[in-house]
Amino acid sequence: MTGIPLPLLRLSEQFAALPGIGMKTAQRLAYHVLTMNEEQVEAFREALLDAHQNIHNCKVCQAFSETELCEICADEERDHSTICVVESPKDIAAFERMGEYHGVYHVLHGLISPMNGIGPDQLYIKELLARLQQGGVEEVIMCTNPTVEGEATAIYLSRLLKPLGVTVTRLAYGVPVGSDLEYADDVTLGKALQNRNEI
Amino acid sequence: MTGIPLPLLRLSEQFAALPGIGMKTAQRLAYHVLTMNEEQVEAFREALLDAHQNIHNCKVCQAFSETELCEICADEERDHSTICVVESPKDIAAFERMGEYHGVYHVLHGLISPMNGIGPDQLYIKELLARLQQGGVEEVIMCTNPTVEGEATAIYLSRLLKPLGVTVTRLAYGVPVGSDLEYADDVTLGKALQNRNEI
Repeated sequence: MTGIPLPLLRLSEQFAALPGIGMKTAQRLAYHVLTMNEEQVEAFREALLDAHQNIHNCKVCQAFSETELCEICADEERDHSTICVVESPKDIAAFERMGEYHGVYHVLHGLISPMNGIGPDQLYIKELLARLQQGGVEEVIMCTNPTVEGEATAIYLSRLLKPLGVTVTRLAYGVPVGSDLEYADDVTLGKALQNRNEI
Repeated sequence: MTGIPLPLLRLSEQFAALPGIGMKTAQRLAYHVLTMNEEQVEAFREALLDAHQNIHNCKVCQAFSETELCEICADEERDHSTICVVESPKDIAAFERMGEYHGVYHVLHGLISPMNGIGPDQLYIKELLARLQQGGVEEVIMCTNPTVEGEATAIYLSRLLKPLGVTVTRLAYGVPVGSDLEYADDVTLGKALQNRNEI
């Protein structure tokens, strides 16, 4: 006997299927749901449905959006000649939080990863090419993660895009602000030294 | 601009309202929901509704149950003369996992806590008294947490129950199995020494 009624086990399994939620946390969340009132449960269920049904990819940049064109692509104040290429829609939130980027974005929805069988065709690359072919784009900044796959994707794309006459740049590598050099890895420290700036 | 569409923000807030889920984790979960297919989202919503609507307190022990009488109370093989009193339904799962307890339970749904304005009247104590008055109960084991409030509740209940002619016991304090004495706190170590057993 588990001492846990079936509907509660099933709800725990649903929570445990979410990324980063283990079975113990999932059970705690499921027990919490029983302490919520009817309106709260209904609001949760409604939010799940609403987000899943009403969020689509922006037809231009492929970011998540409620509208056909996302609010950034629709904003005429933004610099549409600069495109920041990111792996996933989550990354956009990080750049917008920083608040110093005024260009637009393009979301690949993944990285090239032969190990996981993901090739360039599964990413939103032809949509990026279509944007460049429409003209008006001067710079494409590769903002994929500083990992092997992020790097490989950035190099692949830069080779593809350069012949189209746009400047292709990459986020700078270096030591993170506020970090301790003692704990910096060799590769990062090497890149930081290589890319040193005059002060 | 946040770069996050409104339905996604609302879903993040729902996740963030769960215990132990911060805003960053909540956003990660909300983004994950968008990668789920329609059936998966529907199964999640259904599990929320099902658990919330169909789980009630067992009419005898007050544990969560789908049925009027929980499976433990309904089980004639269990020893109904021994009642383990716990703070919350979650605690039952821990005892059942251990697998060496064959009696039944009683869930208080809280602890006496004057600081938080919770008195004996807000707990399921009169339901416990009613069970004892029906007779057949020989031992009540206080299994509330080894905290100030758990201890206070256990003492309050033992004073209330002893006049009814039942044996009232308490879970043993001691050093946890597999732990390191170096890190044991003084109070625990003191109790372990006091309650030492001949080997």
